[in-house]
Amino acid sequence: MTDPRKVRVAINGYGVIGKRVADAIMLQPDMIVSGIADVVDDWRIRLAAEKGYRVFGATVEAVAAMSNAGIATSGSLADLLADSDIVIDCTPKNIAAANVPTYRAAGAKHILQGGEKHALTGHSFVAEASYASAVGRSSTRVVSCNTTSIVRTLTALKKGDLLGSARGTLLRRATDPWESHQSGIMNTLVPESRIPSHQGPDAKSVDPDLDVVTMAVKVPQTLGHLHLWNVRLTRPAEVAEVLDLFRASSRIALIRSDAGLPALNSIKEWMLDLGRPHGDLYEVALWEDMLTVEGDELFYAYMVDNQAIVIPETVDAIRALCGLEQEAASSIATTNASIGIGKLVARPGRQAGAP
Amino acid sequence: MTDPRKVRVAINGYGVIGKRVADAIMLQPDMIVSGIADVVDDWRIRLAAEKGYRVFGATVEAVAAMSNAGIATSGSLADLLADSDIVIDCTPKNIAAANVPTYRAAGAKHILQGGEKHALTGHSFVAEASYASAVGRSSTRVVSCNTTSIVRTLTALKKGDLLGSARGTLLRRATDPWESHQSGIMNTLVPESRIPSHQGPDAKSVDPDLDVVTMAVKVPQTLGHLHLWNVRLTRPAEVAEVLDLFRASSRIALIRSDAGLPALNSIKEWMLDLGRPHGDLYEVALWEDMLTVEGDELFYAYMVDNQAIVIPETVDAIRALCGLEQEAASSIATTNASIGIGKLVARPGRQAGAP
Amino acid sequence: MTDPRKVRVAINGYGVIGKRVADAIMLQPDMIVSGIADVVDDWRIRLAAEKGYRVFGATVEAVAAMSNAGIATSGSLADLLADSDIVIDCTPKNIAAANVPTYRAAGAKHILQGGEKHALTGHSFVAEASYASAVGRSSTRVVSCNTTSIVRTLTALKKGDLLGSARGTLLRRATDPWESHQSGIMNTLVPESRIPSHQGPDAKSVDPDLDVVTMAVKVPQTLGHLHLWNVRLTRPAEVAEVLDLFRASSRIALIRSDAGLPALNSIKEWMLDLGRPHGDLYEVALWEDMLTVEGDELFYAYMVDNQAIVIPETVDAIRALCGLEQEAASSIATTNASIGIGKLVARPGRQAGAP
Amino acid sequence: MTDPRKVRVAINGYGVIGKRVADAIMLQPDMIVSGIADVVDDWRIRLAAEKGYRVFGATVEAVAAMSNAGIATSGSLADLLADSDIVIDCTPKNIAAANVPTYRAAGAKHILQGGEKHALTGHSFVAEASYASAVGRSSTRVVSCNTTSIVRTLTALKKGDLLGSARGTLLRRATDPWESHQSGIMNTLVPESRIPSHQGPDAKSVDPDLDVVTMAVKVPQTLGHLHLWNVRLTRPAEVAEVLDLFRASSRIALIRSDAGLPALNSIKEWMLDLGRPHGDLYEVALWEDMLTVEGDELFYAYMVDNQAIVIPETVDAIRALCGLEQEAASSIATTNASIGIGKLVARPGRQAGAP
Repeated sequence: MTDPRKVRVAINGYGVIGKRVADAIMLQPDMIVSGIADVVDDWRIRLAAEKGYRVFGATVEAVAAMSNAGIATSGSLADLLADSDIVIDCTPKNIAAANVPTYRAAGAKHILQGGEKHALTGHSFVAEASYASAVGRSSTRVVSCNTTSIVRTLTALKKGDLLGSARGTLLRRATDPWESHQSGIMNTLVPESRIPSHQGPDAKSVDPDLDVVTMAVKVPQTLGHLHLWNVRLTRPAEVAEVLDLFRASSRIALIRSDAGLPALNSIKEWMLDLGRPHGDLYEVALWEDMLTVEGDELFYAYMVDNQAIVIPETVDAIRALCGLEQEAASSIATTNASIGIGKLVARPGRQAGAP
Repeated sequence: MTDPRKVRVAINGYGVIGKRVADAIMLQPDMIVSGIADVVDDWRIRLAAEKGYRVFGATVEAVAAMSNAGIATSGSLADLLADSDIVIDCTPKNIAAANVPTYRAAGAKHILQGGEKHALTGHSFVAEASYASAVGRSSTRVVSCNTTSIVRTLTALKKGDLLGSARGTLLRRATDPWESHQSGIMNTLVPESRIPSHQGPDAKSVDPDLDVVTMAVKVPQTLGHLHLWNVRLTRPAEVAEVLDLFRASSRIALIRSDAGLPALNSIKEWMLDLGRPHGDLYEVALWEDMLTVEGDELFYAYMVDNQAIVIPETVDAIRALCGLEQEAASSIATTNASIGIGKLVARPGRQAGAP
Repeated sequence: MTDPRKVRVAINGYGVIGKRVADAIMLQPDMIVSGIADVVDDWRIRLAAEKGYRVFGATVEAVAAMSNAGIATSGSLADLLADSDIVIDCTPKNIAAANVPTYRAAGAKHILQGGEKHALTGHSFVAEASYASAVGRSSTRVVSCNTTSIVRTLTALKKGDLLGSARGTLLRRATDPWESHQSGIMNTLVPESRIPSHQGPDAKSVDPDLDVVTMAVKVPQTLGHLHLWNVRLTRPAEVAEVLDLFRASSRIALIRSDAGLPALNSIKEWMLDLGRPHGDLYEVALWEDMLTVEGDELFYAYMVDNQAIVIPETVDAIRALCGLEQEAASSIATTNASIGIGKLVARPGRQAGAP
Repeated sequence: MTDPRKVRVAINGYGVIGKRVADAIMLQPDMIVSGIADVVDDWRIRLAAEKGYRVFGATVEAVAAMSNAGIATSGSLADLLADSDIVIDCTPKNIAAANVPTYRAAGAKHILQGGEKHALTGHSFVAEASYASAVGRSSTRVVSCNTTSIVRTLTALKKGDLLGSARGTLLRRATDPWESHQSGIMNTLVPESRIPSHQGPDAKSVDPDLDVVTMAVKVPQTLGHLHLWNVRLTRPAEVAEVLDLFRASSRIALIRSDAGLPALNSIKEWMLDLGRPHGDLYEVALWEDMLTVEGDELFYAYMVDNQAIVIPETVDAIRALCGLEQEAASSIATTNASIGIGKLVARPGRQAGAP
């Protein structure tokens, strides 16, 4: 792990996002995981060590606890930062804010996750939309899973000069699988009490020109989010034209309900069958046979895998901040190839693996 | 049950809707249940007999099966129709179509449920919108729970000359509680593969002037449906103005998330605490503290109790067809008073029971 | 509410249990609710006032908060205790322990719920098993829903001299419906990490002679608990003999899977159809067609409605402590008749309402 | 795929089990997949082709349908059988019975799954218990997931001369993830209406000496089954002694609730983190810190991954029938090593990967 030509990336927080980011980084040609820091001392961190990651305690207490549990550590977060070019903060929501001064004091470039406020870094990142402005920065925030999906899809329409106002309804998974034994909702639906929900405004932190309003509801399942959109286009358009725009985007997968993918669980099974780690869906999976245009109104629905969609964005954000690549398209292509984006076979009558 | 001044109503199908319609009819001053017909012979039909309803076999075979099970019947459906002024068909979806010729041959006025096609009766009924045109007809169709809620809410906006185009997203309960041991979906979401979903067009069968498009998703819970709407108004408006329109409607209950009613289960608990039979929510329960207006766009969300919302409509439809009442408002008032609509206490700082 | 011949019962905590206990007391000939105390100020307490209950603040702060919310109170808990003969503590788990000194200081007889420790009152109550020893006491604890069901069923077998060792597996609902929007588990099962689970030993607090061990698992549903038992009998027996023992018990309802009651949701629908408030099942609902005897081993399964089963026990406990009735059987008969226990129609080929 | 030294295995039915069996076979040194046959023509079969499997239509109609869908086939099932040494029938329940004559006519050794009857092959297979009697046979039946787990665990106790009578309660997942959008149960529990449930007797088809009775309940989740057992031992024993017996078994993984694995979802997350395909758990995952001995009674609980547990058994069964290996232990060791059984890190204070 000491290739001098590779950027050294620290992972602070080895949870749902952190462990995926780490594994994705190891698939890149130009970066490497310098180590992971966390506060737990159970099988999760043991597995990290088993995989070959150097383990650090995120706090002094964590170093001691890990030692007591028989887990060899390479020191504390400070030690890890001293040996890294950049740190990805994957700690739970709102903890990153307290870490930022530490990162700054250590002179470490840093990437926060979407649960944090835009103002903490002053920049919000989605590869298709804001890569250029991130190049060389000392920090950015990879926006949340929902916001990432919104920016990806609306940017595709914007590139075709079709985007007017967008109104979305978000069905949010109530909790992640790994914590579903201790949190969740049961046999009910919980609408967010405020309209607009925060995702619409958050998308404007990436692209202030977007005219987007969202409503959100928490639903009793763990697989991911489902979005339904009504977009007023700048002019009447054909379905094929819209599909071409989405198809031209780098991380939108067009799928078909009538080809065996009618629901969230079907899509997840497909990802597992593809051999994706954790069955991760990095793409926005958008139903092409559900998409409808009536006059100048566009309707569509897609799935967001909240555990996976930001992983490729984070890899790209590393590349931008560290100046490894100036062009968004080049970074996206490298990232996509490394984790299998583009290799999909869910449309009938197509060649396996065709775009 | 032989009051000559009361209209005699037959119930064909004593299931989720039929049993509720029967009990609601018995609370009215001007109608009575002449009998119920069904094909089952278990505790459900025994309870009907125990309550005092006369039981008929919906088929010749059912009469025999009931007798074998020790359930005393008063004959077959033909016998029931001969002793009734009108029949409410509450059989499962698509069965009613086969029953219509029987009703016609018997000269019986008849009311179908929303699962059937509009063309079967040529008239679709929601009390607030189409009572007048139903008066004296021989038949009508009480539209589905979702469509009923759409027509109620949009009619309220229309009466205030505020209604432009309405775009709704419907989260549909996957199955009813009583059959949730043998059907349902688990840990997934299933979008309807076609946009628009059928509810939007169905609303136009009641009021052709409506500009309404719906998308629908099946969700893993049994309590009821949740709708989220984005309505373009004819002009910018104040929140208070919109709330007044909804408040003026006869079967919309304004509720507050911040007053202890943040989710479907909370609303259901409230109904059970109110002593409503089965915890039935006859009203559209619309969150007043979630409702938002941005310029000329209105956003709101509400719950639909799919087992209960059509019950008062069915009572009104009986009154219209049988000419018991010429005015919608009078019928609605009678029905509402009988089943407790209007007696709600879910807003803070209000008197219990205040409107 | 000032009948001098009726025992005056205070309810401290108007939640899932408190509201049910209050309503059940009002159906008794020999007791009355003197008032309810709580700390909330939303629709729940407004409904209590609307029903005619006098409302008290459980704390000084609660009195003020209720007044601010426009809810008329009759004073504080101290005022309520001063006007009552006995208080039923229905506060959340572990809060009652802090209330006991208050009750003692006020000289109030008191009944705690099953979440509290046996030692707090020194007596644990199930009507069929320990009524006699409760007569005239100053306090008792009505044991938990699960423990109540265990004592009811095993006592029935004991009365027939058939009870050897009993081994039960308990499937516990993860949360109650009213709070299922903020707590719960999703798409998983969570076994209790210790064997035996606490219910087995707890049953011995009522009857030390029981040889009972339990294992428990939390399951993702809200309707109630399901128990599966394997009992070694003192000798080989016939199924009919065992069923007769259960049938002779006062609060066990024998039901049949093959008569339309194959699952928890079916039973709940049946209770709602019966018109029980909240669809409450006060009985242990035990499947007679599932019950099996192999040699000297007995196997059976039943449903426990955790929101309802302790309600009749609490009424009986009031009667015992206040000396209103010396005989368990008499109190049970009065309670049962008042809330409809015994009026069931779930077995085929029987008369509706037959025992 | 034409290594003459490898046994050629046909897979008939490329579903939940078939696709896993195929992938596991490809990891073995002594066998190869000769082709897969199925009747579907969507992304599932395309993925099979993409992975390099030769695809056959299970019926003549399927061959045509696949061709129409643009999927290249290598012929029909008959063609596949002609080119194979053995066929694994992974078709849905009850279909295999109709296939057996075809297999016999083609002279093909065949392995059926646990949904079929024992009599169809006259032999029931669990590697630890009945490998020896399967060697050289023309056919066997790999028993169901639940039965496999029962035989594995009880055989371990039997080998230590500790096994008396075993009484188990089985909580069965209601449906598999891939079909959870169209079947399932919701917010309820459904006990099997007959005791004993079929799993107990089925275990005796592998080992007639077992004294085992089971009860079963369907629960609303998709992850797998949970078993709770009460075993009467032949004598009082220590916990450590029992754990050693389970540890000595080849496919039981001892896990700890207090080490971060308290529930089914936690175990599944662990398997996904381990990189197992589909997050498959081939082992019986038995909680060592929940296991209790009281006198001569043993209590324990474990998880069964119904999609994965029979995969290694099927590989062993191929080896036995084809005479590739005479000793169970040798085959088990080869299979285990190939799919990663034994590499687990869920116990605190142990080395990662230690047994």
